[in-house]
Amino acid sequence: MSLLIKNGQVVTATDSFVGDIHCQGETIVALGRDLAVPADATVIDATGKLVFPGFIDPHVHIYLPFMGTYAKDTYDSASRAALVGGTTTLIEMVCPGRAEDPVQAYHQWKAKAEGTSACDFAFHMGVTRFDESTPAAMREIVADGTASFKVFLAYKGALGVDDDELYQTLKLAKELGVIVTAHCENESLVAKLQAELLASGKTGPEWHEPSRPVQVETEGVRHLMTFAELTGAHVYVVHTSCKGAVHAATEARLRGVNAWVETVIPYLVLDDTAAQRGPATGHADFEGAKFVMSPPIRAARHQPFLWDALRSRAVSTVATDHAPFDFQGQKEMGRGDFTKIPNGIPSVEHRIRLLYTHGVATGRIDLNTFVDAASTQAAKLFGLFPRKGTIAVGADADLVVYDPGVEETLSAETHLMATDYDAFEGWRVQGRCEAVTVRGEVMVRDGKFVGQLGHGQFLKRQPTHF
Amino acid sequence: MSLLIKNGQVVTATDSFVGDIHCQGETIVALGRDLAVPADATVIDATGKLVFPGFIDPHVHIYLPFMGTYAKDTYDSASRAALVGGTTTLIEMVCPGRAEDPVQAYHQWKAKAEGTSACDFAFHMGVTRFDESTPAAMREIVADGTASFKVFLAYKGALGVDDDELYQTLKLAKELGVIVTAHCENESLVAKLQAELLASGKTGPEWHEPSRPVQVETEGVRHLMTFAELTGAHVYVVHTSCKGAVHAATEARLRGVNAWVETVIPYLVLDDTAAQRGPATGHADFEGAKFVMSPPIRAARHQPFLWDALRSRAVSTVATDHAPFDFQGQKEMGRGDFTKIPNGIPSVEHRIRLLYTHGVATGRIDLNTFVDAASTQAAKLFGLFPRKGTIAVGADADLVVYDPGVEETLSAETHLMATDYDAFEGWRVQGRCEAVTVRGEVMVRDGKFVGQLGHGQFLKRQPTHF
Amino acid sequence: MSLLIKNGQVVTATDSFVGDIHCQGETIVALGRDLAVPADATVIDATGKLVFPGFIDPHVHIYLPFMGTYAKDTYDSASRAALVGGTTTLIEMVCPGRAEDPVQAYHQWKAKAEGTSACDFAFHMGVTRFDESTPAAMREIVADGTASFKVFLAYKGALGVDDDELYQTLKLAKELGVIVTAHCENESLVAKLQAELLASGKTGPEWHEPSRPVQVETEGVRHLMTFAELTGAHVYVVHTSCKGAVHAATEARLRGVNAWVETVIPYLVLDDTAAQRGPATGHADFEGAKFVMSPPIRAARHQPFLWDALRSRAVSTVATDHAPFDFQGQKEMGRGDFTKIPNGIPSVEHRIRLLYTHGVATGRIDLNTFVDAASTQAAKLFGLFPRKGTIAVGADADLVVYDPGVEETLSAETHLMATDYDAFEGWRVQGRCEAVTVRGEVMVRDGKFVGQLGHGQFLKRQPTHF
Amino acid sequence: MSLLIKNGQVVTATDSFVGDIHCQGETIVALGRDLAVPADATVIDATGKLVFPGFIDPHVHIYLPFMGTYAKDTYDSASRAALVGGTTTLIEMVCPGRAEDPVQAYHQWKAKAEGTSACDFAFHMGVTRFDESTPAAMREIVADGTASFKVFLAYKGALGVDDDELYQTLKLAKELGVIVTAHCENESLVAKLQAELLASGKTGPEWHEPSRPVQVETEGVRHLMTFAELTGAHVYVVHTSCKGAVHAATEARLRGVNAWVETVIPYLVLDDTAAQRGPATGHADFEGAKFVMSPPIRAARHQPFLWDALRSRAVSTVATDHAPFDFQGQKEMGRGDFTKIPNGIPSVEHRIRLLYTHGVATGRIDLNTFVDAASTQAAKLFGLFPRKGTIAVGADADLVVYDPGVEETLSAETHLMATDYDAFEGWRVQGRCEAVTVRGEVMVRDGKFVGQLGHGQFLKRQPTHF
Repeated sequence: MSLLIKNGQVVTATDSFVGDIHCQGETIVALGRDLAVPADATVIDATGKLVFPGFIDPHVHIYLPFMGTYAKDTYDSASRAALVGGTTTLIEMVCPGRAEDPVQAYHQWKAKAEGTSACDFAFHMGVTRFDESTPAAMREIVADGTASFKVFLAYKGALGVDDDELYQTLKLAKELGVIVTAHCENESLVAKLQAELLASGKTGPEWHEPSRPVQVETEGVRHLMTFAELTGAHVYVVHTSCKGAVHAATEARLRGVNAWVETVIPYLVLDDTAAQRGPATGHADFEGAKFVMSPPIRAARHQPFLWDALRSRAVSTVATDHAPFDFQGQKEMGRGDFTKIPNGIPSVEHRIRLLYTHGVATGRIDLNTFVDAASTQAAKLFGLFPRKGTIAVGADADLVVYDPGVEETLSAETHLMATDYDAFEGWRVQGRCEAVTVRGEVMVRDGKFVGQLGHGQFLKRQPTHF
Repeated sequence: MSLLIKNGQVVTATDSFVGDIHCQGETIVALGRDLAVPADATVIDATGKLVFPGFIDPHVHIYLPFMGTYAKDTYDSASRAALVGGTTTLIEMVCPGRAEDPVQAYHQWKAKAEGTSACDFAFHMGVTRFDESTPAAMREIVADGTASFKVFLAYKGALGVDDDELYQTLKLAKELGVIVTAHCENESLVAKLQAELLASGKTGPEWHEPSRPVQVETEGVRHLMTFAELTGAHVYVVHTSCKGAVHAATEARLRGVNAWVETVIPYLVLDDTAAQRGPATGHADFEGAKFVMSPPIRAARHQPFLWDALRSRAVSTVATDHAPFDFQGQKEMGRGDFTKIPNGIPSVEHRIRLLYTHGVATGRIDLNTFVDAASTQAAKLFGLFPRKGTIAVGADADLVVYDPGVEETLSAETHLMATDYDAFEGWRVQGRCEAVTVRGEVMVRDGKFVGQLGHGQFLKRQPTHF
Repeated sequence: MSLLIKNGQVVTATDSFVGDIHCQGETIVALGRDLAVPADATVIDATGKLVFPGFIDPHVHIYLPFMGTYAKDTYDSASRAALVGGTTTLIEMVCPGRAEDPVQAYHQWKAKAEGTSACDFAFHMGVTRFDESTPAAMREIVADGTASFKVFLAYKGALGVDDDELYQTLKLAKELGVIVTAHCENESLVAKLQAELLASGKTGPEWHEPSRPVQVETEGVRHLMTFAELTGAHVYVVHTSCKGAVHAATEARLRGVNAWVETVIPYLVLDDTAAQRGPATGHADFEGAKFVMSPPIRAARHQPFLWDALRSRAVSTVATDHAPFDFQGQKEMGRGDFTKIPNGIPSVEHRIRLLYTHGVATGRIDLNTFVDAASTQAAKLFGLFPRKGTIAVGADADLVVYDPGVEETLSAETHLMATDYDAFEGWRVQGRCEAVTVRGEVMVRDGKFVGQLGHGQFLKRQPTHF
Repeated sequence: MSLLIKNGQVVTATDSFVGDIHCQGETIVALGRDLAVPADATVIDATGKLVFPGFIDPHVHIYLPFMGTYAKDTYDSASRAALVGGTTTLIEMVCPGRAEDPVQAYHQWKAKAEGTSACDFAFHMGVTRFDESTPAAMREIVADGTASFKVFLAYKGALGVDDDELYQTLKLAKELGVIVTAHCENESLVAKLQAELLASGKTGPEWHEPSRPVQVETEGVRHLMTFAELTGAHVYVVHTSCKGAVHAATEARLRGVNAWVETVIPYLVLDDTAAQRGPATGHADFEGAKFVMSPPIRAARHQPFLWDALRSRAVSTVATDHAPFDFQGQKEMGRGDFTKIPNGIPSVEHRIRLLYTHGVATGRIDLNTFVDAASTQAAKLFGLFPRKGTIAVGADADLVVYDPGVEETLSAETHLMATDYDAFEGWRVQGRCEAVTVRGEVMVRDGKFVGQLGHGQFLKRQPTHF
């Protein structure tokens, strides 16, 4: 089997040139000008189009028991949504409850993907408890090819770890050479502020942001940085939403701390007025709940800051924190108590097109930064490189042919994600993923999913640092 | 003419794979595994070796009237030295005196290179005065393909510009879309501190650093950042030596200022004890003068900081500020008055090997960062990309085959630079540039220069931002 | 002559107690409970009232040739205005043009006050040029009892000094032990931004603030801090208006720099909408000109910051920068060109009452901080202590009996300042200076001036540090 | 009963004048020049001497069950030691175990002082657990006149509170208007680092500092600042030892956080080489244990920083954290395991003389700052003002007549503290407390204790802010 993508503008985190990409089997074997077309080759003409490495979303939730319910997507819906959106690899968070056995949970999560996912996948292993049995369990999981951890400094009593557990997790990670991704919010402050707001009758979704203000997140990041500095572990702050948090991480990097920062697409394009939608602002009752995630969407002034930080690479990656809950029946569980609104903004399908539209097309970031932030950095940080995250000889033939000239409208009526609403309903986006391949197999043509469920593979990853 | 570099580990700022590079004429036309060998091809077997894009030194002085004398190198010596050291493109500073006509000076500088240089070359145009005639002169120079400026906040009355001139230069640069490189030290403070030290009998080279302490440099960087913020110009801080300076630039980047930071190889491997060499420290009289450059080599604690900043990419590039003066007859002009020591540490020949040895081989930076800092970033910032700075289809066939297994000793006896001393005399370095090509032409073989003088071309560059 | 102020709440920078103050001649001789009443004593019953040390305004302009005109006040009007407002000592800025002889200018300024002023007075000597003759001149002036300097980093070509002059002034000040007060704005940036705004037709008073944005002031403060750090001089930043400037000084203090910060009353109670008053905002044409001063009144968010900084003592003093120009005929010179509006907001009469009303009465600062910021710190920093700035045995009997229960309205119709408008027209203030004494002499009774012009003395001051 | 202190140089936080102080009963009734001598008056001639308000040590431990043993001092020894050292008021930390009833503990602590103490005393109530019963208990204690709390972010499982407890304590404090003093070190980090060091055989006192490095303290201060910012509580960081901690608090103050910083005398005069004394450094075995306290004595570079911070008032108070354990039998419990060394450096007797000698006599701070830091600020912050902390009409007659001309040597042989060693053995100090009075009673004459045990009173304090 041979695939030739001809004459596109090939873009990597570093390069940009017009040329051909020749793939054999699952792998890119040559890049060049006017490469000869093998007789058996599938040829995709990319003239006038952009060709990107398959995008990686390093922060998604698919199977997710959370706040008394389950996220809507399965790998059936989510992997198809990802692919039409240009994402060829998902890294899902495994989030066992504190009482659960981590190895069992890990296999439970993995089983949901295996045989079903159309795109490739990997996991960050949630360390939601640390006791004597944890090191052995984590070694087993790392040995299985899942070489990164996730800790929550938030979600007290549910997923959150305390300082002792955090320290031990980081020490173990350092020893194993795996990176630790972390949700950084001080859990006690959130719990107390939530209780105070509810007690004073502030129960709508517009109170979600004030219940976890920027100080709570900044504190979390600083806290993680201190622990990283003293353990030497490599850390990665997930879903960073505000100036204080990025500053805290940047200062730590200048002290030599091995830290990286992720933001997610909602923070780059939405502001805190989203969750304030409701009768008081002329919207349908409880509309704001659609935009509840944690950390919350912030005041508008943080948005240009985050774009600047992305451009200067103080922010390394743009993920989604995709966590898909229906508005009907799920988000609505939080009517009268915003703390019961399942957290999450479904966006795995839209990330790339929103980032292109609001980032590249506006000139805020260039094409290389776009690829770096949405693909390459994730591959490098999480041990997928050089298989994933680039267009290079020897890399997996995960390719996205993007036509920047097409404009489309996002909508729940057309999206493949399983949720009953779209947070970006009616938004216009520039560009469409005309063709998407995963290891040489064409999964998307003309913007439509044409692949096979189950084509996706579990990606075994090695520890990234020692 | 066809060139095939076979089976090397090809490294770019992003990628790293084992494969072949096929070049036709001056250009890379294909990358792949087991590419067919054209009949006419020159083949270089790179098995077990690293293949890098030609390195770029974005900050050198070759023709340099300075402090009453002239730097020793010509393009004959300097370009050969650069090439055996892996550097295929030099960007030289044009530094006219305030009284000189800039266009004339520009052509004078350019003429020194044209027809002589063995490697490719470009210029940063020094704006050492700004008056009514300056805009027209600079437009002419930019139109000629020299699309970057250099300003000195130091060297009062000689090369330095005042605040009005700085503002006007930045506004003009913004309008023309060219980046401004800047030497950031407060000139008045230097002049006053020098005078005080001399007046108190402190005349040896060991007083050079105290005459321009870190505060003087940090002040300069902050100053430039304010001017960049208010004009919107893109700026590049040359030869950054200390924590305060990097912090100042990093804070500015987080405010959205378009700023980049260069350090130079001496700061990464030397400390302030170098310039203190003399009778008091058991060295030959006046030995310290060999290590006098500005900003000065700093206290040892700044070194690990700079490596960290390089790793986290707060520092974008590693250049040399190559400024080659003999010890005999030139550096010695400053006996009894350190302010008369011609500034500079010759290092254009050694940059890559020192950076590899002290950076890559020690694990401080990885291979991609090495390439990015020593080649790619300079190409991108200064409009040489995608011709230079990478190994990609369509790029110039500037390639370095590096054998990391060879160890050699640096010495004035063997170096090609024209100076009578080597600041790194006796240092062991790991690796050698086995082969170096410039636009497809093999200029170095087995570590020896085998090319033609005059092969180098002037690189016309476009403005990089608008 | 004997004076007894009975039963008031005596407040100093540290203390607060109910008691009596006994003065003999010009001096406080005893503090106590139920002090015996000497037969000859004038008795003022302060029951239920506050008794403060006479307030000091360390930053006023009275004689002021500026921008082609002269400030309106004389010591006749200004000293009476000061006294009814509770200010018993004025420190005026001597601002000779660069071409003027400093000693002559100094005596010219001094002569305006001597024999006329009703309150005591001193001067900061403006160093508006530094050449070979400057040290001798300044020594003479310091020997005369004027032991503080003023430099302008702004007002290029008029009052401003360049970096060489700044350095020399600070070195001389360090040698003489005198403190240097400094107007910190980068003059080149102001000049360039002004020219750009005018060139684009932005000529109204609302463009004054954008012509000298916070970056320009922050840059100025950082610049001064570097020079202070390297010379060891004591410095005092006048009229600080914004967060960046206070942060810059605070960071410097933590590095050991001897720096203090002044703000002025307009910044604490006005915001940038003041200068935006005009037809577009429903005000009389050109109304905004009344509020033009430099640095400009800032956006509202800086106000609570400055109050916090005052409370935490990051800001040491609250002065006025009183510079009284009429609206008619003077401010109006800037119609069609905001750069020609004479700078200044007349406030020497209102400072104390505004600070009490908006600071003490609202709980933002306590009474001790009020006294410290408006009297004691100025006395200490400028060598007036312990004669002035406190209520203590041996101190001058400069006392203010303040009745916080009275409310009055400020207005040009009633104020004693010579200007034809009042920037605080119609504002209600809480409290009135019932009685004010200067060296034992009652100058104000029932809020009215009852003293003699010419009672004021020139205060000879010693250098404050060595 | 009447007391007249004649002709001394009276120094307060603000003032300094030569004069007389007249006291009747327990109170200062007049200050003046040449006050008449009442017939019954005790007269102390203070000519040529300094007269200070009685000093306050706001951070001492006297009754202290800690690390399995008890501190050596009782109020008998400690109050006499305090008085000869010029300290007339002690504020002791009540530190109940988590299992203890706080009200009972409070009364137990109080009973140790009442009837015994020669000097006045008050308490900070340790909140070492927060549960449902805590608010009522704390209200009772505050109503009893103990209007300040103490929390430990360190000492996990012993005295430390978790984040929930911290938040609740601060909210309660805010509601009650009481300030919260806090020991800021991250307890988990300390515990983990201790365990690691011990596990690697690092058991001597020289490993105490590395077990709680500056990052651990800085983290603690930042953490407290976030909690203070979100609750609005007033907080006071006890025993701050390093740059990072002071910076964290200063930045918070500029954000409007109501925070104050204490340092203690050992940090100002000792450095980390103290705890490194032992065989390896030519000292008696285990000598370093004498200097073990937490946070630890830091590297020498923090010392000048702390003096600067004291001078600029970024540090408000200088206390002792007096915690007196014998070397024999107590400190020695930690042989072979530095974590078992009882923490503390006895210094209640020496604070004032060390601060005078190393601060005032060297010119690092002036006399007013000396009084402010060692007396006035503590009085103001903790509700003792205006009874204590100043020399003013109506204040308690707590006075110290200090002769700066006397030089003495500190030694365990002569000190009154109960410990068997003196951390400052053999140090020369400048000055002696010739006379010390407590509420008009002479307790020290000629440097010797001449008072009565039991003269000291419990000081009932009101909440300080609302």
